[in-house]
Amino acid sequence: MTRALVECVPNFSEGRRAGVVSAIVAPLRDCRGVHVLDARSDPDHNRTVVSLVGEPAPLQEALLASARKAVQLIDMRTHKGAHPRIGAVDVIPFVPLRGIDMPGCVALARSFGKRYARELSIPVYFYEAAATRPERRNLEEVRRGQLEALEKEMALPQRAPDEGDARLHPTAGATAIGARAFLIAFNVNLRSTDLAAARAIARAIRASSGGMPCVKAVGVDLREKSMVQVSITITDPGASPLDAVFARVKDEADRRGIAVHETELYGMTPASALLEVAARALCISGFDAGQVIDLRLLDLQEGA
Amino acid sequence: MTRALVECVPNFSEGRRAGVVSAIVAPLRDCRGVHVLDARSDPDHNRTVVSLVGEPAPLQEALLASARKAVQLIDMRTHKGAHPRIGAVDVIPFVPLRGIDMPGCVALARSFGKRYARELSIPVYFYEAAATRPERRNLEEVRRGQLEALEKEMALPQRAPDEGDARLHPTAGATAIGARAFLIAFNVNLRSTDLAAARAIARAIRASSGGMPCVKAVGVDLREKSMVQVSITITDPGASPLDAVFARVKDEADRRGIAVHETELYGMTPASALLEVAARALCISGFDAGQVIDLRLLDLQEGA
Repeated sequence: MTRALVECVPNFSEGRRAGVVSAIVAPLRDCRGVHVLDARSDPDHNRTVVSLVGEPAPLQEALLASARKAVQLIDMRTHKGAHPRIGAVDVIPFVPLRGIDMPGCVALARSFGKRYARELSIPVYFYEAAATRPERRNLEEVRRGQLEALEKEMALPQRAPDEGDARLHPTAGATAIGARAFLIAFNVNLRSTDLAAARAIARAIRASSGGMPCVKAVGVDLREKSMVQVSITITDPGASPLDAVFARVKDEADRRGIAVHETELYGMTPASALLEVAARALCISGFDAGQVIDLRLLDLQEGA
Repeated sequence: MTRALVECVPNFSEGRRAGVVSAIVAPLRDCRGVHVLDARSDPDHNRTVVSLVGEPAPLQEALLASARKAVQLIDMRTHKGAHPRIGAVDVIPFVPLRGIDMPGCVALARSFGKRYARELSIPVYFYEAAATRPERRNLEEVRRGQLEALEKEMALPQRAPDEGDARLHPTAGATAIGARAFLIAFNVNLRSTDLAAARAIARAIRASSGGMPCVKAVGVDLREKSMVQVSITITDPGASPLDAVFARVKDEADRRGIAVHETELYGMTPASALLEVAARALCISGFDAGQVIDLRLLDLQEGA
């Protein structure tokens, strides 16, 4: 049986005091069965983003221990930073990796959120796939006006939290807990310096202007390379696979007489998104990721 | 301490009678410390290929129990199938995965082969890295003329078995036991019933007739599908990547006016072989398998 493997990317509203950050991250690093893949603090945003992987049970324990530290050490009454936020533990998204699907991560976010609100006395909003109201699928909507607006509007029915009382934690504010797909950052560099063309291609492919589902894209000038780039985020490679997005960008570039120079995969990618590209490139019938020995060894080690 | 982890891929000469196959596979599934990663039966080949992972000690017990079932239930005197074979248990290769190297797997194959020949009264040929004679490094040489030729030639010194008496087991034939690197079984099914064409394509791509390095290939008639197949084994995807092999087969088929219907990946494959295909299909510059979150986790767990 495949173990459920979840990525979780908690965002904490502290990106300046290194001692505080390491105290918050420590319970995540120390938890058996949970692995910190990345932890980045941004002093301008005054925010730390941690990337974790683990099975649901240890992951939840680690998150609660880490959140308790954040509540102890962060006071939102004095927090300032460039990034929108509603709490000391601002967002906790759960991302299905293997052995768990999106409904599984929604259930995980909801049950974790219930426990989190009760144990930490912090009101919780469910967002994206875990949202209980359509408008809360959009995290920006949950964070509208940030902590400061929420403080005044929380008693309104449309801003009532999904879990916990309709009042902010005095120092830690509120937390948005969600389930979402893995974000893939995929950039296509074009043999052109025509920024307008890159922007037009981005517009043609992105979901918000009627392009491909679950695709965000902007045109970017890469001055150092004397090229332009279509910088793409795919929020669900099941809806818009990497190869389909790449083909569409090539097509759009082609129509404008522009060649693709190369592409870049930025940050982490789930194996499945790439394996499916390979399976299609090779016309493999009935490809099963269970045939990939490295992934099976991962299962065995987890199961052992 | 790292445990020795070996892959073993026994091939049994039965791919049609589901009850027989499950009786043979059952002792492999039931053995503690051994994991069946994959078990596939092909009715045209009349053959079942099982992928196992385990530590050497339980692996050997499981293999002996399974082979005993195969000897009971398979009668090679009536066996017919498209795939070359010399016995009910046709081949047993040991593949080093982790904590064991090729010489370790050679030692394992040799000691297991000695015990296997003695306990089952089946003559054993050592092949590939475990071969005792240079020509037997090549499994095709061991299987030359198949069971039927071996029956006549077994008394000749050049065809003497490495273990056991120089006569076939009356119903189970002989077994080739070896140590080898991980190999990829990749079949291309053609929209054609022209077996001569499939054979010509196989000849064009295989290393032994001057084709692609580390590629073995034969043309096979898939009567049940009314198709022919180029059945390919890649012994080193670094030397001949899957996409290059596929492109070459397509080319050769194309030249003969034959379309590719689909391909099959048979059994287990290392992630790297597929990820490289995806990276090339997407023109990714500087692709690093460390960006694949699942593989990263495998590394982390090994380090733990």
